[in-house]
Amino acid sequence: MTQTAYLALDTQTLPDRLAHLPALIEQLGEDAQQWSVREVGDGNLNLVFIVQSAKGSVIVKQALPYVRLVGDSWPLPLYRAYYEYHALTRQALRDPGSVPEIYHFDEDQALIVMEFLSPHVILRTKLIAGETVAGLGAFCGTFCARMAFRGSELSMKSPDKKADVALFAGNVEIPAITEGLVFTDPYFDAEMNNHTPELDPIVRSLRANIDLKRVAQSMLAKFASTTETMLHGDLHSGSIMSIDTQSRVIDPEFAQYGPMGFDIGMLAANYLMAYFSQPAHRGTDLATYQTWILSVIEDCFTTFEQEFRHLWQTERTGMLYSQALFEDQGQSSASACDAVLEGIWSDALRFCGIEMHRRCLSLAHNADFESIEDTSIRAPLEARNIEMGTTLILTADTLHTPKDLTSLARAFNEKDFL
Amino acid sequence: MTQTAYLALDTQTLPDRLAHLPALIEQLGEDAQQWSVREVGDGNLNLVFIVQSAKGSVIVKQALPYVRLVGDSWPLPLYRAYYEYHALTRQALRDPGSVPEIYHFDEDQALIVMEFLSPHVILRTKLIAGETVAGLGAFCGTFCARMAFRGSELSMKSPDKKADVALFAGNVEIPAITEGLVFTDPYFDAEMNNHTPELDPIVRSLRANIDLKRVAQSMLAKFASTTETMLHGDLHSGSIMSIDTQSRVIDPEFAQYGPMGFDIGMLAANYLMAYFSQPAHRGTDLATYQTWILSVIEDCFTTFEQEFRHLWQTERTGMLYSQALFEDQGQSSASACDAVLEGIWSDALRFCGIEMHRRCLSLAHNADFESIEDTSIRAPLEARNIEMGTTLILTADTLHTPKDLTSLARAFNEKDFL
Repeated sequence: MTQTAYLALDTQTLPDRLAHLPALIEQLGEDAQQWSVREVGDGNLNLVFIVQSAKGSVIVKQALPYVRLVGDSWPLPLYRAYYEYHALTRQALRDPGSVPEIYHFDEDQALIVMEFLSPHVILRTKLIAGETVAGLGAFCGTFCARMAFRGSELSMKSPDKKADVALFAGNVEIPAITEGLVFTDPYFDAEMNNHTPELDPIVRSLRANIDLKRVAQSMLAKFASTTETMLHGDLHSGSIMSIDTQSRVIDPEFAQYGPMGFDIGMLAANYLMAYFSQPAHRGTDLATYQTWILSVIEDCFTTFEQEFRHLWQTERTGMLYSQALFEDQGQSSASACDAVLEGIWSDALRFCGIEMHRRCLSLAHNADFESIEDTSIRAPLEARNIEMGTTLILTADTLHTPKDLTSLARAFNEKDFL
Repeated sequence: MTQTAYLALDTQTLPDRLAHLPALIEQLGEDAQQWSVREVGDGNLNLVFIVQSAKGSVIVKQALPYVRLVGDSWPLPLYRAYYEYHALTRQALRDPGSVPEIYHFDEDQALIVMEFLSPHVILRTKLIAGETVAGLGAFCGTFCARMAFRGSELSMKSPDKKADVALFAGNVEIPAITEGLVFTDPYFDAEMNNHTPELDPIVRSLRANIDLKRVAQSMLAKFASTTETMLHGDLHSGSIMSIDTQSRVIDPEFAQYGPMGFDIGMLAANYLMAYFSQPAHRGTDLATYQTWILSVIEDCFTTFEQEFRHLWQTERTGMLYSQALFEDQGQSSASACDAVLEGIWSDALRFCGIEMHRRCLSLAHNADFESIEDTSIRAPLEARNIEMGTTLILTADTLHTPKDLTSLARAFNEKDFL
């Protein structure tokens, strides 16, 4: 039975509706009545089913036509599954093994069938539980560097890159969520905002800071009007799944073209929030675990730089910084690579600071802080995070190395702002 | 007779082929046999006909499927007429009266019928002839400011702007011309380059300057990966038509989304080249006329800033720098406007320097210099222009006002580099 009009799946109808798909038959076997189906989505934007049989297992992810978080009053176009599919296929090519394998895509049903990552769990859960993941920073740094470089005109042929920009330019509503919730709402009393009440004085001061709002808006302008590379668009510890020795990136439905520093900056913010929230989650292992989180941040940026430099030297086949201008003239392009990396770094720090703000001040908070039920414990930790965010946004140019960033985090981790 | 397959017009076939068009009948009358037709195109990219009758006159512009400058070996898509049409209609809305009125557009024939500007002549011709145009700088500054502001998310609703970016993203080949000829070819010994032989030592030194090439490439990256606003894309004194008291902008077939500082920077470069070339074109009126050209540059930037600030205060209805963050909180956004203008200014100066280079070193030179037949006169003037271009690219951040820019021009106008 082939269905073309969109209809949301449920655990009852899924086997019948998908039984005819060769990709599923290959993974799960022909007898769909033997498939077991569980819905496991966190429910913000999508239905997510684990479908298992004696033969194997898959994830079936279907977009919902609205944001569940705020009821069906916030409609969201189903075509985001189309962009997610295109993002996943590009990510798989640019950093093989970094994302789940795709088995099937149905545009009409806004449905992607993909590899079930098991026993992986959402990284944020592990970070709250105090679990380490070997190689996490290097994995993230490599992923971000390969996406940044290989999705740009440093690497891609211009006609291919421009055609891809045109493809993703059809996505309007998804970037609008980020533009509003991330870059603007934190900085005024927007309708859907919420924050821990004890933060009132800090929030008041932040929203009165004209310089801060000016720079945050300049980063919004950059986010909305830059097409340097294809972004994941929503890279945080909730969109990474890990086991103790391996990680995968999931959920690129916010993929868009944007500035190279965006993904790594947003991700660093989520590690910093994990760091600042730890005093509420850990016991005697607090110092050790916080040190590990900072090492992830350092590894992430250090590996990003190493990988980016490596690709600069080995895969610079696009029109930007053409070898014809440098190497072919017997001249080094190393200083040009330095300058590009500096730009990515300072952009990343500013995006990082903005993400640290919005996760405490806007609509969608992080479990790192939100799971701390006692607000008298939560608020001082959030305050450190917010104040460091402000420092990053306003003084990004004064930080030069990943260690500068983690030293700043250590300093803020000792401060009392309330 | 309606024709859908593309076929180039000629003076013989034009009346028959266009006689059925209501828009032409309205302008020229019904008797097409009474229309007189002249081909007047400069012939690089298009056929341009003046069609006149006792009743009136129109321009018929038809794209050619190749670049005539280099024979039909360089094919160019006819769809650029589609982008030119869309650019003209947007420009007419954003700065009424600044562009020719459109009477008819035929996508299949890549053909636009528009107002015949008469007795306007190409501004570059007037600049070489030593003629002034009243209000020229203010016209250009107003045009550039309105295009920059009203085509951006400072003014436009984001869905409208993003849809427009998607529309123009289909244009790949035209930006590629600018990317190659303007930003890259001047800086190495590219196949189609040519320069005045006496400039050899200066060209050698320029092409050995790694810092210069790094910054020029960073501006290429910005040009190719920024969608701040819809650009004219090819704004120079050859795409402005003037009478003594009035000017109009024509030929936006290189329209694309790009950085706000691009058009005004490219235009300023063309005024600076007019300035530096004057010693070969003028007699006793040299000093007076050069001073007038510099006043045009100053007026252009000063008016740009005034108009942009005015629009910032009166038409800031887009998502960027929302009033909700500033004015609605009783706070001024003036410092944010300052910062945006500073960014546009320093971008403009770097684009300006690059345009000054490419017009002497790459494929398409300017008549300002090219019409100086004696290369021993031409070369020293071009040298001043090239050296000032380098200074602009490398030290844009040290110039703060339009007078800083024109003072720099005066200083270079006194120097001998050969």
